[in-house]
Amino acid sequence: MQFRVLNNGFIRLDGVEASDLSVVNSARVSFGKRKDKMEEADEGLINFLLSNKHGTPFEHNFFRFHVKAPIFVAREWFRHRIGWSYNEYSGRYSEMTLGAYTPDIEDFRTQVGKPGSYSFEELDTDTAMYASKIMMQTYEICEKSYASLLENGVAKEVARSVLPVATWTEFYASTNARALMNFINLRADETAQYEIRQYAEKLLFFLEEHMPYTYKAFIKNNRVAP
Amino acid sequence: MQFRVLNNGFIRLDGVEASDLSVVNSARVSFGKRKDKMEEADEGLINFLLSNKHGTPFEHNFFRFHVKAPIFVAREWFRHRIGWSYNEYSGRYSEMTLGAYTPDIEDFRTQVGKPGSYSFEELDTDTAMYASKIMMQTYEICEKSYASLLENGVAKEVARSVLPVATWTEFYASTNARALMNFINLRADETAQYEIRQYAEKLLFFLEEHMPYTYKAFIKNNRVAP
Amino acid sequence: MQFRVLNNGFIRLDGVEASDLSVVNSARVSFGKRKDKMEEADEGLINFLLSNKHGTPFEHNFFRFHVKAPIFVAREWFRHRIGWSYNEYSGRYSEMTLGAYTPDIEDFRTQVGKPGSYSFEELDTDTAMYASKIMMQTYEICEKSYASLLENGVAKEVARSVLPVATWTEFYASTNARALMNFINLRADETAQYEIRQYAEKLLFFLEEHMPYTYKAFIKNNRVAP
Amino acid sequence: MQFRVLNNGFIRLDGVEASDLSVVNSARVSFGKRKDKMEEADEGLINFLLSNKHGTPFEHNFFRFHVKAPIFVAREWFRHRIGWSYNEYSGRYSEMTLGAYTPDIEDFRTQVGKPGSYSFEELDTDTAMYASKIMMQTYEICEKSYASLLENGVAKEVARSVLPVATWTEFYASTNARALMNFINLRADETAQYEIRQYAEKLLFFLEEHMPYTYKAFIKNNRVAP
Repeated sequence: MQFRVLNNGFIRLDGVEASDLSVVNSARVSFGKRKDKMEEADEGLINFLLSNKHGTPFEHNFFRFHVKAPIFVAREWFRHRIGWSYNEYSGRYSEMTLGAYTPDIEDFRTQVGKPGSYSFEELDTDTAMYASKIMMQTYEICEKSYASLLENGVAKEVARSVLPVATWTEFYASTNARALMNFINLRADETAQYEIRQYAEKLLFFLEEHMPYTYKAFIKNNRVAP
Repeated sequence: MQFRVLNNGFIRLDGVEASDLSVVNSARVSFGKRKDKMEEADEGLINFLLSNKHGTPFEHNFFRFHVKAPIFVAREWFRHRIGWSYNEYSGRYSEMTLGAYTPDIEDFRTQVGKPGSYSFEELDTDTAMYASKIMMQTYEICEKSYASLLENGVAKEVARSVLPVATWTEFYASTNARALMNFINLRADETAQYEIRQYAEKLLFFLEEHMPYTYKAFIKNNRVAP
Repeated sequence: MQFRVLNNGFIRLDGVEASDLSVVNSARVSFGKRKDKMEEADEGLINFLLSNKHGTPFEHNFFRFHVKAPIFVAREWFRHRIGWSYNEYSGRYSEMTLGAYTPDIEDFRTQVGKPGSYSFEELDTDTAMYASKIMMQTYEICEKSYASLLENGVAKEVARSVLPVATWTEFYASTNARALMNFINLRADETAQYEIRQYAEKLLFFLEEHMPYTYKAFIKNNRVAP
Repeated sequence: MQFRVLNNGFIRLDGVEASDLSVVNSARVSFGKRKDKMEEADEGLINFLLSNKHGTPFEHNFFRFHVKAPIFVAREWFRHRIGWSYNEYSGRYSEMTLGAYTPDIEDFRTQVGKPGSYSFEELDTDTAMYASKIMMQTYEICEKSYASLLENGVAKEVARSVLPVATWTEFYASTNARALMNFINLRADETAQYEIRQYAEKLLFFLEEHMPYTYKAFIKNNRVAP
């Protein structure tokens, strides 16, 4: 399954080994019990574990994602160290050819409020269109400079210096449900930047599809991770 | 698949999402390339990555094990913090009813050599049989004391104090190939304790079965993990 | 500083580099600001960070503890993988000579209630004294067996099998304030086992001594870690 | 102590609790031994631990660095997840006012060789000067666009999209000697990018200053981390 995210990115589930049963069985090993399939009462157990912050039973599963996102989104993503593995497109060895992200007109926003309690409001259309034009023109100049540096024999790893932080990149990111829920809790939150929020919200669908009871308990717990 | 380990333990693969292809694809994302299946040249790539200590491509996969082992083995196992998740049988909430491990006669050993360079030699049969008897008698007394404490109303979490560190326990342990290879490197080594070595050597089979090229590269690299 | 913990254990701060200022400065780097000492307003910042789960600024500090505790306490302690480093006394290479833990009479308890909501009550003195005697007698037998196995040439790593899980051990444990608060949150909780709780409560004093504002914010936040 | 790194960056040791003695004592706890100061024989112990990959005794210490570096260097640095804590300047909340990195003329390079075995050669002065001019002109345009977007009310977190990946950033990075040596091993290596190598080589000085025997053992071991 693959979702388009933002206007030119994506998130794709490349591999998965996840089930609510893995939660139940790894929790029940403390009692020496094991089941072959979920039973009705197990929904209660999952709720209990999640709301009481028994986190480890949610670690015995696996999601491998393939993602295309702007570098500034990847930067926020990769701050998640615990329970995450990454491999990313490298501008040292390959030409950066994917262009850069410009928000859709309705996604331009202005920041209001004071430090510690900022919020965002949509920018009026005219200003947004003007801003969009500036961004695209700047990207074009950056790309031309990049091409010119490469033509002159400058190493890719040096030439990339001029590329904007909105440049599209690709990466693999693998994790487990506990770290995934923690990511969603922080990055699908309204205080998170709009762009990473779009990715975080898609992650919820993957959780729901493969671990429906865990998903329900997570929602019920206001998306606070165990 | 399940292996018997030691005379009364086991290791069972409870879930897996692992392939050599996941190594190749997560490495190739640095060039923006992706494949649907392994090709001949990929064996060379896996060798290159492993012997040059490019470790992250080996993290995008998953093994969930169900293990029965003596507590002293679990203690060594759980020292592995990076890339491992655990849930274990709990003596706080459940009675410990699995007994304790006594080595087979031929597995009794004596320690020779000096600090920093100890090695082990088999104990003669008579002494081993005598030692085995002492151990079993001691275990029996411990179990009787445990039962007696429980009968007198002592909480399980207190009563278990008298149980020996060779008591059998059960746990789930989940990991990825990189952490798995690091575990095998250290715990299948001849300097590791015989008992945990038996588990580590079984782990090699699971690696070979699900990631044959990674396995070959690992062996070729003298079991040094990337 | 060193605290006696339980009747024969201890916890000692062996090294520390921790201050509230490190929290403030690592948080303020997001604004490009740095201070040489704490100011009044900084208490509010620490409160804000802690209660809003901005955890990373609490990681830039260090506590190294030297601990003596029963093995079953060390087992629970070492389950904390994130932000903790450990080195422990080894029964493979050294004789275990520290004896085993017996609760003080008033610390014996019985478990009441149902699964999922257990609680504990003090055991009556007569039963506790009887239980204490059983434990000590059992320990004595275990130690004699251990000595006898060693005398017969059995390797230390095998002979230790007969030692009880209440055997005293020693270890170094290093961590940062974030992981420390998470430990205290879980292990000083009334649902935690009495014995590890005694250690967790001492850890609070070290936090208070070296990071008084962080300590206050932590208490105010009901000991929920950021 | 502070080093200038590249032409406009720095690395500063903001806090430290590190000594060779901490290695010796945390290793010796396995024998139940502790010392108040280093002795001559301890150099051998540190060598033994390091070359035999006993890594944990090198984790009981602490270095907190304050760093100014280009974003593309920070990106490589932050890929180090194990044993590292980070806080960074945030372009969401603060204006990015530090400009961007241009290599000194003699640091421009061209890439030669084939995939898997690239190497770098200095660029001729004329081309380097031309490249330098392109980079600085591009940065100027990016900064003007950034300023213009901000003036038009575009939120900082959106406007920063046009800034180049060579933009200077600041961060705190805390770690221990084991993770530090692993960083140096990988990032001071000749296969690492020149720019991050400059930081990695400075880290060696801090290690040498605070843990001289560990430093010597590390060099002797060809900078392979334990």
